[in-house]
Amino acid sequence: MQCFRTWRALTLSSRHITVWWSRAWSSAAGPGRLDLRGIYPPIATPFTASEDLDYPKLEENLHKYAQIPFKGLVVQGSNGEYPYLSEEERVEVVKTVRRSLPTDKLLMAGSGCESTRATMKLTERMAAAGADTALVVTPCFFKGRMDSRALIQHFIKVADCSPVPVVLYSVPANTGLELPLDAVVQLSQHPNIIGLKDSGGDITRIGLIVHKTQAQDFQVLAGSAGFLMAAYCVGAVGGVCALANVLGQELCDLERLCVSGCWKEARVLQQRLIEPNTAVTRKLGVPALKQAMEWFGFHGGACRSPLQPLTEAETQQLRRDFSSNGWL
Amino acid sequence: MQCFRTWRALTLSSRHITVWWSRAWSSAAGPGRLDLRGIYPPIATPFTASEDLDYPKLEENLHKYAQIPFKGLVVQGSNGEYPYLSEEERVEVVKTVRRSLPTDKLLMAGSGCESTRATMKLTERMAAAGADTALVVTPCFFKGRMDSRALIQHFIKVADCSPVPVVLYSVPANTGLELPLDAVVQLSQHPNIIGLKDSGGDITRIGLIVHKTQAQDFQVLAGSAGFLMAAYCVGAVGGVCALANVLGQELCDLERLCVSGCWKEARVLQQRLIEPNTAVTRKLGVPALKQAMEWFGFHGGACRSPLQPLTEAETQQLRRDFSSNGWL
Amino acid sequence: MQCFRTWRALTLSSRHITVWWSRAWSSAAGPGRLDLRGIYPPIATPFTASEDLDYPKLEENLHKYAQIPFKGLVVQGSNGEYPYLSEEERVEVVKTVRRSLPTDKLLMAGSGCESTRATMKLTERMAAAGADTALVVTPCFFKGRMDSRALIQHFIKVADCSPVPVVLYSVPANTGLELPLDAVVQLSQHPNIIGLKDSGGDITRIGLIVHKTQAQDFQVLAGSAGFLMAAYCVGAVGGVCALANVLGQELCDLERLCVSGCWKEARVLQQRLIEPNTAVTRKLGVPALKQAMEWFGFHGGACRSPLQPLTEAETQQLRRDFSSNGWL
Amino acid sequence: MQCFRTWRALTLSSRHITVWWSRAWSSAAGPGRLDLRGIYPPIATPFTASEDLDYPKLEENLHKYAQIPFKGLVVQGSNGEYPYLSEEERVEVVKTVRRSLPTDKLLMAGSGCESTRATMKLTERMAAAGADTALVVTPCFFKGRMDSRALIQHFIKVADCSPVPVVLYSVPANTGLELPLDAVVQLSQHPNIIGLKDSGGDITRIGLIVHKTQAQDFQVLAGSAGFLMAAYCVGAVGGVCALANVLGQELCDLERLCVSGCWKEARVLQQRLIEPNTAVTRKLGVPALKQAMEWFGFHGGACRSPLQPLTEAETQQLRRDFSSNGWL
Repeated sequence: MQCFRTWRALTLSSRHITVWWSRAWSSAAGPGRLDLRGIYPPIATPFTASEDLDYPKLEENLHKYAQIPFKGLVVQGSNGEYPYLSEEERVEVVKTVRRSLPTDKLLMAGSGCESTRATMKLTERMAAAGADTALVVTPCFFKGRMDSRALIQHFIKVADCSPVPVVLYSVPANTGLELPLDAVVQLSQHPNIIGLKDSGGDITRIGLIVHKTQAQDFQVLAGSAGFLMAAYCVGAVGGVCALANVLGQELCDLERLCVSGCWKEARVLQQRLIEPNTAVTRKLGVPALKQAMEWFGFHGGACRSPLQPLTEAETQQLRRDFSSNGWL
Repeated sequence: MQCFRTWRALTLSSRHITVWWSRAWSSAAGPGRLDLRGIYPPIATPFTASEDLDYPKLEENLHKYAQIPFKGLVVQGSNGEYPYLSEEERVEVVKTVRRSLPTDKLLMAGSGCESTRATMKLTERMAAAGADTALVVTPCFFKGRMDSRALIQHFIKVADCSPVPVVLYSVPANTGLELPLDAVVQLSQHPNIIGLKDSGGDITRIGLIVHKTQAQDFQVLAGSAGFLMAAYCVGAVGGVCALANVLGQELCDLERLCVSGCWKEARVLQQRLIEPNTAVTRKLGVPALKQAMEWFGFHGGACRSPLQPLTEAETQQLRRDFSSNGWL
Repeated sequence: MQCFRTWRALTLSSRHITVWWSRAWSSAAGPGRLDLRGIYPPIATPFTASEDLDYPKLEENLHKYAQIPFKGLVVQGSNGEYPYLSEEERVEVVKTVRRSLPTDKLLMAGSGCESTRATMKLTERMAAAGADTALVVTPCFFKGRMDSRALIQHFIKVADCSPVPVVLYSVPANTGLELPLDAVVQLSQHPNIIGLKDSGGDITRIGLIVHKTQAQDFQVLAGSAGFLMAAYCVGAVGGVCALANVLGQELCDLERLCVSGCWKEARVLQQRLIEPNTAVTRKLGVPALKQAMEWFGFHGGACRSPLQPLTEAETQQLRRDFSSNGWL
Repeated sequence: MQCFRTWRALTLSSRHITVWWSRAWSSAAGPGRLDLRGIYPPIATPFTASEDLDYPKLEENLHKYAQIPFKGLVVQGSNGEYPYLSEEERVEVVKTVRRSLPTDKLLMAGSGCESTRATMKLTERMAAAGADTALVVTPCFFKGRMDSRALIQHFIKVADCSPVPVVLYSVPANTGLELPLDAVVQLSQHPNIIGLKDSGGDITRIGLIVHKTQAQDFQVLAGSAGFLMAAYCVGAVGGVCALANVLGQELCDLERLCVSGCWKEARVLQQRLIEPNTAVTRKLGVPALKQAMEWFGFHGGACRSPLQPLTEAETQQLRRDFSSNGWL
């Protein structure tokens, strides 16, 4: 812990310090904690036809997102196809977003890698590139050995040396493992670990995490729009939702309804969002997310290989999942 | 469908008809549908030391449960160890409960078997024994062939001939399969299928089921206390909760808070119930449920073999899960 | 153990004793152990159009099977749809087979139920009905509690009181659990537990079971034709193979090639059997097994509901899996 | 395909061409195919106390391995902790091995990455660094979209442009997905895809792959020592076995026994290898492999974080798994 405090004091850019103190350490989320409350799209990464990064299209998307009352953006969540980007590309995309992002919005950058040392290094680079907080996914290749002991050590080392607060990221559909509850509870006590993005969607677990970390003012974010309302109901403070790339305003509306206690109205809206959300996540994945973005005025485009474009039948299914709920 | 209506008209005892019309077909749950709203303990089955049914202890439990504002009782849900009872025992337990149960309480009897023909027969026997509604679990032995087509056929045949309304029952932790959403939606249109007990706990799925069946006034019951509040939040109308065998009043309190929109108070109570609930279900199972019943003044006792009593370490864990949440 | 020996001495019919001593306790399988070596079809159960048992068709199948050098028959393995039969039907089918079966063939009867008490009772009835050995499947409903401790207790109680030797049965595709290796090893030491039918097909596990039980002369049977040759290779002594209902002589040929060390010829034959076997088991299940039986001159017919007949597309797939390997 | 042939003709170094023609395109494995038959240790990567690459220790291991009749070495299989190495490190390790490896041994280099473009690039670099063949693991992050269509496209693109033949690599314990059989069969027809390392261990599948690819002279390697003998039995031509890092001579002995048809002797040896193999793979993973290497005179040492050293209890378990089989 010494390391974390000293190191952070020495390395933080003045930008971080000033922006943090205006934006982050608001009283509502507890003294000294970056306030994560709100909705974040985990933005998609546009590519050219030859699969190179398409920065102009990225920036056009960012301008459109600026009109929506998001709390911030997640750059290089799963939907950003981060495993398909080189380290340089990952950092460069964060820099690009930082330049475009209004200063009152948070930039949460995915910095997880398989090894602890690579994660530590990339987390530092992400902070230097302008990230306000680092979203660190569970390493997962050696699943059989990624028990609580290993994962706790991993996240502590990363958090100790990260210049910015760390948000844990559990996404079992992609990684094949869930960050164990006891690990979350123990890690919530680290001064530089401030929250969890939980994409597994087990609402019992989410409720229990809120319950067992409340002394730490630990902030839980729903990792998908399908259970956003239920997550608010049991104590989550926001959501990182792929669907926000497409229906961003609608998800901010849902947030507002939940936060203000309008549960009946919230339910009506939530229910119409489940099928479109499942379509762009579990069912058809990032290629569907990017296709839907095109329909709603954003730049989606193709994914990097090995992700394949939707088949014609999948595209029709996707369209039905939006149209049958009144969105198309 | 003809079969269902004619047959039912001919075979229903006058008792069923009169009680139904006073208790069941209340307007709030839609015209012509048995109103399932509320909390149900899936009651445990007490055995003697030699593993025989212990009817006196069962009746003592029933007298205590009569003091709690349950909507009714579930007899032979999973927690009743129904797979360990003979068909005769299953029917006899229902008869015993019926005799003891106040007439304003619903008796939901588990009548699921592996084959359709056995399920049809037992469902009729359960109705004759006094069940108001039949809880029919998915058959599961030939998992690889239990697709929507097979399950829809199964439930339609059972519902067509059942003298009482049918509630679908999906409990993947025990059966290894989840009743597919498209099957639920299609079955919800059957006039004699009125609801679903969903013990899987996927809150996204539960919300979507509510959404896609609302034209049918289909009633979804949370199958476990761990996600009861979240289920109410997304549109469920009640819960069948193992933990209600132990903390029945508390679950009825939680119901009241949810129904009356007191979500903050509900959340505080819900959170304290998750660990005890997990302990008596997923983590330690029926032997833990029965042990906890003993601590709270009910008759639990041993399970039938092959279920084993808790080890000493498990008993301590169980105690901690209750005491650390203020229940012991 | 006392119980087992005394009880058995008192209850064994003279038929059992004499047949056993001529057929079973051959020296090759060790002193005092029923010799299981060879191939067994787990026979299908024919039904009439109204889903009643069709004994005449069963007997016609049995006459055809009598021409094939099987070691014996398994009655009420999974392929016999035993979970869809009543207890009376299960016993009656065994009696029917016993009457028809030549005395030099073994009758292995499935007697597993969910509860230990029901399994004990049915095992005794199966022995009385003429079974030479009882095939006892793992109970599985409360999967989360069916650990080694529970399963060992279950099988010991059954074996203690069984008048005939017990064969363990692990079939994870249907039960959702695998009998743990440590439980198998411990149970192999019971004097009345003589073998295992392993349908999981993990060849590493099968090899290790053979290795760790060799002091007990424990006999492992491959539970499916797909890995029969590999199982022989690592030390199994026979096979209970659904496909033997259809291609019985071919499986006996494969046995002979393996036992006599003709591995190259065995491999050629084994490879042609994999796809037909997968088709009638994992891929299309019992309805496909029964369809294929029809093509090869046996009575298959329909399954009991909820098992559905094959769709037209499935039937074509099944035909391809046989014809592309030269069987049709 | 054009691309593959032309490109390869232009870019192959003369070294590749000459070594290939002496070593690889032997007649036994069919005209024009690199002969993969034999045993390969997927070598571990030694690190210093500060988790840097320890090249001197790597070279000492290589000298010891040179005394063992391996067919070659796999560099950066899973056991090489390749997901924890940077791209530069991955290439540098291959270069180091190439310098040390006798010219009559094959160097199979793991070049798989998540994106197709990164895999293509690294495969080319591995060839330039001296790899004789590239071992390409299935990408796995977006599991839900990694169907046959996506995986076939991925491997075709990589194989088209690879200067060296490609070996497919399916390791579901780590990746959470198995390369589907239909994809393997289709890919086996590509002129530059010569084999498969299958670490899943489903012996039915392995037998079927051999069967359905025999026209292509496709070479299947067992990916673990636990099922090596069974894999030979059904037609595999060799093994890439973590345990060969520790008991290399013994695995080469097992190979010789299998190839020469001494199945009884093979079985005795195979059985003694299962528990040690399971210990250093599925049960305790790479940290156990490295610990066992220390006991047998090799340099193992620590893993990179997040992999943790064995606990004391795990070390004792590991020792038992070797000693109870007579290896320690």
